[in-house]
Amino acid sequence: MKKFINSIDTLLDESLLGFAKAHADIIQFNAQPHFVRRINPPKSGKVALISGGGSGHEPLHTGFVGAGMLDAACPGQIFTSPTPDQMLAAAQAVESGGGVLFIVKNYAGDVMNFEIAAELLDCPNASVLVSDDVSLPKAHSTGRRGVAGTLIVEKIIGAAAEKGADLATCKKLGDKVNNVTASMGVALSSCTVPALGRPTFDISDTEMEMGVGIHGERGHETLPLTSATEIVEHLTGMIDDEIKPEKHQPVLLHVNGFGATPLMELYLIYDLAAQYWERRGITIARSLVGNYTTSIDMAGCSITLSALDEELLELWDAPVHTAALRWGC
Amino acid sequence: MKKFINSIDTLLDESLLGFAKAHADIIQFNAQPHFVRRINPPKSGKVALISGGGSGHEPLHTGFVGAGMLDAACPGQIFTSPTPDQMLAAAQAVESGGGVLFIVKNYAGDVMNFEIAAELLDCPNASVLVSDDVSLPKAHSTGRRGVAGTLIVEKIIGAAAEKGADLATCKKLGDKVNNVTASMGVALSSCTVPALGRPTFDISDTEMEMGVGIHGERGHETLPLTSATEIVEHLTGMIDDEIKPEKHQPVLLHVNGFGATPLMELYLIYDLAAQYWERRGITIARSLVGNYTTSIDMAGCSITLSALDEELLELWDAPVHTAALRWGC
Repeated sequence: MKKFINSIDTLLDESLLGFAKAHADIIQFNAQPHFVRRINPPKSGKVALISGGGSGHEPLHTGFVGAGMLDAACPGQIFTSPTPDQMLAAAQAVESGGGVLFIVKNYAGDVMNFEIAAELLDCPNASVLVSDDVSLPKAHSTGRRGVAGTLIVEKIIGAAAEKGADLATCKKLGDKVNNVTASMGVALSSCTVPALGRPTFDISDTEMEMGVGIHGERGHETLPLTSATEIVEHLTGMIDDEIKPEKHQPVLLHVNGFGATPLMELYLIYDLAAQYWERRGITIARSLVGNYTTSIDMAGCSITLSALDEELLELWDAPVHTAALRWGC
Repeated sequence: MKKFINSIDTLLDESLLGFAKAHADIIQFNAQPHFVRRINPPKSGKVALISGGGSGHEPLHTGFVGAGMLDAACPGQIFTSPTPDQMLAAAQAVESGGGVLFIVKNYAGDVMNFEIAAELLDCPNASVLVSDDVSLPKAHSTGRRGVAGTLIVEKIIGAAAEKGADLATCKKLGDKVNNVTASMGVALSSCTVPALGRPTFDISDTEMEMGVGIHGERGHETLPLTSATEIVEHLTGMIDDEIKPEKHQPVLLHVNGFGATPLMELYLIYDLAAQYWERRGITIARSLVGNYTTSIDMAGCSITLSALDEELLELWDAPVHTAALRWGC
């Protein structure tokens, strides 16, 4: 394993200290228990938005804390759910009378721990469950996983909360965005979890994993590595079957890298995906290309399509000031 | 070689088309010859800033075209200088009466081609040569290479030009920033140039390349892989020897990933580098952490220190609206 670390035990803390120092104008890091919160306290009465999950997906979620997006994020150990005490402490730190909305990626550990935190929390609260990964069937026993579409849910609810939407409205909006958002990923390599010290799966030079999540697991199927065009046809086809955007429907197209894929390739993938939907008369109204929801050092990418109506586009465009997304302020 | 491509011959063009489509609100891509220019024409009389170089370093330079930074960028083939006709066409497209300033990383091909373009150009022009890589001695026969410090030069001149500074002032400012900026990089892996199809050098699991550039070349020396703390001490020590910042001197600290290093590790490196200078009484006034000057899919990073006075800090903070750097507008 080749990584820039001092020890596996201190990696996360050292990294969070660096993150907090580099972005001291936006966020503050609470070490015991671990959470990151925005430093400019939101208006009293604003719904507090809190997300979190295992680390290793940076900039998700800590990089999305700040004005117009999350009020706090709880980083767990690598690929491990944060604990209820983190979520509870974060909620107590940022709640300001408008209640708390947890934004939770659909993984058993995250769901359970956020549920416990919600029960312990002494204020109005609700949860939005993100489940945008269409590589699994909708009827999958534990439901679909939350992947790169999560940031779209966080951005749009973030804008609404900043504008004063109440808890029920934010919850409804989050569910709506989740329902119109679909993602699917493909990997060319595994990632290396530091505590394991070796790739989580073996893959040959002529294979790819189609339908991967973001935790270094194998995909839905192992396929022969093929051209970018064929890969994109596969991913976009699955997403299109789910979302079924109508002609002239405006969409947000997000191409996300898993950590080790160069921007040059991500933009190529973006071009092919945009062509796919343009041929179908869909309007690519907004775009986001880059490494936002990563899987440590995996080579691979995902495509996310979000069918946003005018209200949602406006919320997407609203000012945001976080470490990883910043515009309009 | 595992990459998302259709063919080696079309990779760059397909990627640039995707880049242009994703950022159509900021830039425009000219296909023959290749250059990227900002769409909102600068004020008449503004100095036109143009950079360029081999591709494979994205987001450098195309990602830095836009208001407050570059007016145009000329991407060459991967790790290959752009040609004078690209630079000339870009200059003619964006020049608006204030003359042209070329910002050139110090590589023989780039220097030669920008010189030819300058000779062919029928308007006042000047060049700033960036040479921030301290892994080579100052007296090196071809001079030091331009690496991650380039974006700092581009950002600061960009802000000055936007405010109306004339050609001579912009040139002087660029040289000044280059003189107070030093970088050094380390690699844990090679990168894979698509046309070659395999890593450009072999490196064992227990070694690292200290003092690498951004073209997949070996470093100044091959050393045993050690702790992040020791790696950072090595890099920061070399940089500090060069810049010799004074106590309480404000600095910009930039930790740059080469493409395949997770943000988690980059922030850890940032924390250790910040500690190094804080122990010496230096004020980390500004920070930038992320993959900005990459070497395709190399695992590795560089540290850059820039000793900015109040004037330069103000220019760093000025609004910028590009694909890869965006704040204040």
